[in-house]
Amino acid sequence: MSFWKRLFPGTEATEDSPRDTDRITFSTDRAIDIYELEELCDAVGWSRRPLRKVKKAIECSFCVIAMYEEYQDRRRLIGFARATSDHAFNATIWDVVVHPDCQGRGMGKSLMDRIIAELRSADISNITLFADPHVVDFYRRLGFMSDPEGIKGMFWYPD
Amino acid sequence: MSFWKRLFPGTEATEDSPRDTDRITFSTDRAIDIYELEELCDAVGWSRRPLRKVKKAIECSFCVIAMYEEYQDRRRLIGFARATSDHAFNATIWDVVVHPDCQGRGMGKSLMDRIIAELRSADISNITLFADPHVVDFYRRLGFMSDPEGIKGMFWYPD
Repeated sequence: MSFWKRLFPGTEATEDSPRDTDRITFSTDRAIDIYELEELCDAVGWSRRPLRKVKKAIECSFCVIAMYEEYQDRRRLIGFARATSDHAFNATIWDVVVHPDCQGRGMGKSLMDRIIAELRSADISNITLFADPHVVDFYRRLGFMSDPEGIKGMFWYPD
Repeated sequence: MSFWKRLFPGTEATEDSPRDTDRITFSTDRAIDIYELEELCDAVGWSRRPLRKVKKAIECSFCVIAMYEEYQDRRRLIGFARATSDHAFNATIWDVVVHPDCQGRGMGKSLMDRIIAELRSADISNITLFADPHVVDFYRRLGFMSDPEGIKGMFWYPD
């Protein structure tokens, strides 16, 4: 069953009603449906987080990118990324997620290209992120370097 | 020659005028003297950055900590750190600097303890940074972990 059929049952193409081509769109609008975002994060198996804090994090991020697949007059959130920044030198990208049904179709690259373009348009040149081991190669292919000149990403967690 | 004598010539103690004990104070005020900050960054050999952007970065950081050594009615900037954040989950600490004359006296630890406390008071639990190789051990001693569970710090720079 295709992604759209799963998402929008009854939308499959028929001879009388040919199915439109899916269209991928991007939005930087922070007024994102956080329940839809939670559903997307659930789909990739992320731990649930308090929605109040998710909302705050979105409001206080420097930029957010939501990626939608559109079909007729409906759209479905299929990707998301956001970045914190000092609005001048540095940005850190967080919460990069692409729906499992859409992975392997270049959508992750499109999403990352979009957020990098957004940060570059704000003249931010030091773009960073913290990559889980299984996505390090994905980010390398996009031009990210791990530990350049021995710089180490470090984490502090409360006891 | 002591740090204070270098900073404030003529302030050395005499029998008639005993020298006050130096007092270390911290400030989260963003109205920091950016020329004094530049002088501090020069002292540790950092590359110069446009002051307009430094000012913007300070304004748009989630928090800044300035560390002063005070003597009588004068104070001198001897340390600085700032953090970007989404105000909810994550923070990244940038531009940690301690004047070379004050290094090795626990001031770096005091500065870091202060910024961590500031972030923790805002209920931010994922505190991150990117450490140059020569300070990785310093941050380890403060409880930071490098590459926990294989998570890699990654950087993207413009061509």
